[in-house]
Amino acid sequence: MIIDIHSHFFPKLSQAEAAALNRATAPWLKIGADARFGDIYIDEKPFRPVYDALWDGKARLETLDQQGLDVQVVCATPVMFAYAEPIAKAAAWNQRMNDLGTEFCAADPKRLKVLAQVPLQDIDAACKEVSRVKQNGHVGVQIGNHVGDKSLNDEGILEFLNHCAAENMPVLVHPWDMMGDVRMEKWMLKWLVSMPAETQLGALSLILSGAMERLSPDLKICFAHGGGSLPYLIGRVDNAWTHRDIVREDCPNLPSSYLNRLWVDSAVFDPDALLFLVKKMGEDKVMLGSDAPFPLGEQQIGSLIENSSLQAAAKQKILGGNAAHFFAI
Amino acid sequence: MIIDIHSHFFPKLSQAEAAALNRATAPWLKIGADARFGDIYIDEKPFRPVYDALWDGKARLETLDQQGLDVQVVCATPVMFAYAEPIAKAAAWNQRMNDLGTEFCAADPKRLKVLAQVPLQDIDAACKEVSRVKQNGHVGVQIGNHVGDKSLNDEGILEFLNHCAAENMPVLVHPWDMMGDVRMEKWMLKWLVSMPAETQLGALSLILSGAMERLSPDLKICFAHGGGSLPYLIGRVDNAWTHRDIVREDCPNLPSSYLNRLWVDSAVFDPDALLFLVKKMGEDKVMLGSDAPFPLGEQQIGSLIENSSLQAAAKQKILGGNAAHFFAI
Repeated sequence: MIIDIHSHFFPKLSQAEAAALNRATAPWLKIGADARFGDIYIDEKPFRPVYDALWDGKARLETLDQQGLDVQVVCATPVMFAYAEPIAKAAAWNQRMNDLGTEFCAADPKRLKVLAQVPLQDIDAACKEVSRVKQNGHVGVQIGNHVGDKSLNDEGILEFLNHCAAENMPVLVHPWDMMGDVRMEKWMLKWLVSMPAETQLGALSLILSGAMERLSPDLKICFAHGGGSLPYLIGRVDNAWTHRDIVREDCPNLPSSYLNRLWVDSAVFDPDALLFLVKKMGEDKVMLGSDAPFPLGEQQIGSLIENSSLQAAAKQKILGGNAAHFFAI
Repeated sequence: MIIDIHSHFFPKLSQAEAAALNRATAPWLKIGADARFGDIYIDEKPFRPVYDALWDGKARLETLDQQGLDVQVVCATPVMFAYAEPIAKAAAWNQRMNDLGTEFCAADPKRLKVLAQVPLQDIDAACKEVSRVKQNGHVGVQIGNHVGDKSLNDEGILEFLNHCAAENMPVLVHPWDMMGDVRMEKWMLKWLVSMPAETQLGALSLILSGAMERLSPDLKICFAHGGGSLPYLIGRVDNAWTHRDIVREDCPNLPSSYLNRLWVDSAVFDPDALLFLVKKMGEDKVMLGSDAPFPLGEQQIGSLIENSSLQAAAKQKILGGNAAHFFAI
C-alpha cells in the first residue's frame, strides 16, 4: 500500500471570506478562466500558482490514480493557520477549514485522509478542536513549527502535544512563518533555506529544552521535508552538547538519542539524501511525503523511494507501511 | 601531510583597543588568573571561554604536535570582521588584525598559516588589503557570508572575489551575523541552526543569482562547516529550480551543476554526514577543517576522517592533499 503523508489542499475561499478574517494576511483562491488553474492570493497579490487537484477532491483522486497512490493524507497550506488572529475569529476559521477538509475528502474518504489545523494561539481551544475533529474522521493534526515567538517547547504547546498523544492523534510539524530578511526575497530562498532551518529549530527546541523528557512517549510526531536540516546537522548538535555547557544545560541526554522518537517524511528530492536520511532516522521512521500538489513537491510521487537502492522491505515500509501504522489507516 | 584548513586565532586585544573601534560590538580578550585560560568579551559581556592556543602561537604549535597535524591554517574569529564600521577605522583595524595574524604564525611560519580578513564594506579597500597581505605571506582570505543586507552575489563582492581569483588568493566563506530571532537565544541555536543556514544562503546567492556564470573559473572558494545545510538540501533546490520559474529566472543551469566549483571543509561531526558530504561534493572538494580551538570544533582533529570508512586515497586527499593544492602549501 502506498500512502503519501504530506500533501496539501486549499478550499475555494473567496476574497470576502479571507477579508473577514484578515484582509492583509488571510489567503483566498482565484480560479482562472480555464477552471483547472488558479492562484492562491494574499490580499491583492498572487502567492502561488495552483491547479484544481488542490481544491477539488475529485480532481485530486484522479492524480492518485495517475500516480499509483492508494491513500493521500492532505492538510492545510500553512498560510491558512491564522495563529496571529484573535481567538474567537481564529477558532471559527479553524473549524471551518477542518470541515472544508472533510468535504474535500468526501470524494473518497477511504483514499483521501485529512489532518486538522488548530488555533494554537489558545491551547484550550486547540485541544478542543483536536477532540472535535477526531470524531469527524480527521486522522491527525498539522501544526506550524512555532507560534510567533513561541517554539514547540512552549509550555502550552507541550500541553497540546500531550493532549494529542492522549487522544492518539499524530502530529505533523510543518515549517512556516520563516526566519530571514531582505537577503531572501528572491528565488524562493525562504523556502529553500529558512523552511528547513525552521524545521530543525522546531525539533531542537523540543530536544535541547529537555521537553522530550516531559512529552508522552506515546506522542507520534513527524517533521516535514526530511526533518529539514536536522538530520545532516545532528552531529554538529551532539558535538556542541558534548563540549559546551550552555548547549546541554537543559537537555540531559545526547541530542541524537532522541531521534528515535521522531518521524520524518521523505521529501528530500535527492537519492543520496534519502539514503542518508534513512541511515540517520531508521527505516521505521521515514514516510513517503510529496508536498504535492505544489511546484516544490515531488512530481512523480514515490519515485525517489522506488528508484533508490534501499532494500525492498525498507521501501515497503517507507512507501506506506510506516504511515499505515503512524496514522492507523 | 595533514592540514587543518579551518581554525581560529584571536589576538591579545585590550578592552581599550576594542573600544577604540566600537565599544558596543568590538571583541577583546580577558585572560584569567590562570594565564592559560580566558574569555573573549564583547563590551562587558563574556562571549566565549577560550584557552591560550587561541592567542599564543607557541601554545598553538604544541596542540599541532599533540594532534599530529603538520599544518594548521588559522583565521580571524568572525566577531573581528568590523564590516559595520566606518571604512577608515575598519581598514586600519583589518590591517592590524592581519599583522597580528602574521605575528601569531611567527612561532613557526611553515606549520602555521594565516588567512587575511578584509574590510568588505569597501571593495577597493578590501582588494588592496588582499594584495598587501599576499606579499606578507597570507595564504588566502576569510570573508563572512554577507555584509549586512548584501549577500555574496552583491556586485562589489563579486568584483572582490574575481580580484581574489586574479591574485590566486583562495577564499574561505565563514557564516556570521546570523539570521534569527528571540526563539534562538538559548542553547547556541544560532550556531546550530542559523550558521549552517547562513552558509547555505551564501552559496545559493552565488548559484541562483547566476553569479557563478560571471565569476572567474579560477576562483577557489570554500564554505565552512561542510557547506552548512547546502549539501543535504541541494536536491530540494534542484527540484524547486526545475518546477518553479521564479527559482530559475536568473540561474541558467541546474543548481547542483555548480557544486564542482565549490570546496567545503569536513566539520560535520558525524561519520554518516561525512560520507554523504564526500558523495555530494566529491573527494577532491572536501578538506579537513576542525573549527579549533573552540568548543564547537573537532576535539581530536582529523579523527572523523581517519575513523571513517572512506578509502585510503580519499582520506589522504581530505586530510591534506586537497588543502595543499587549494592553498598552494
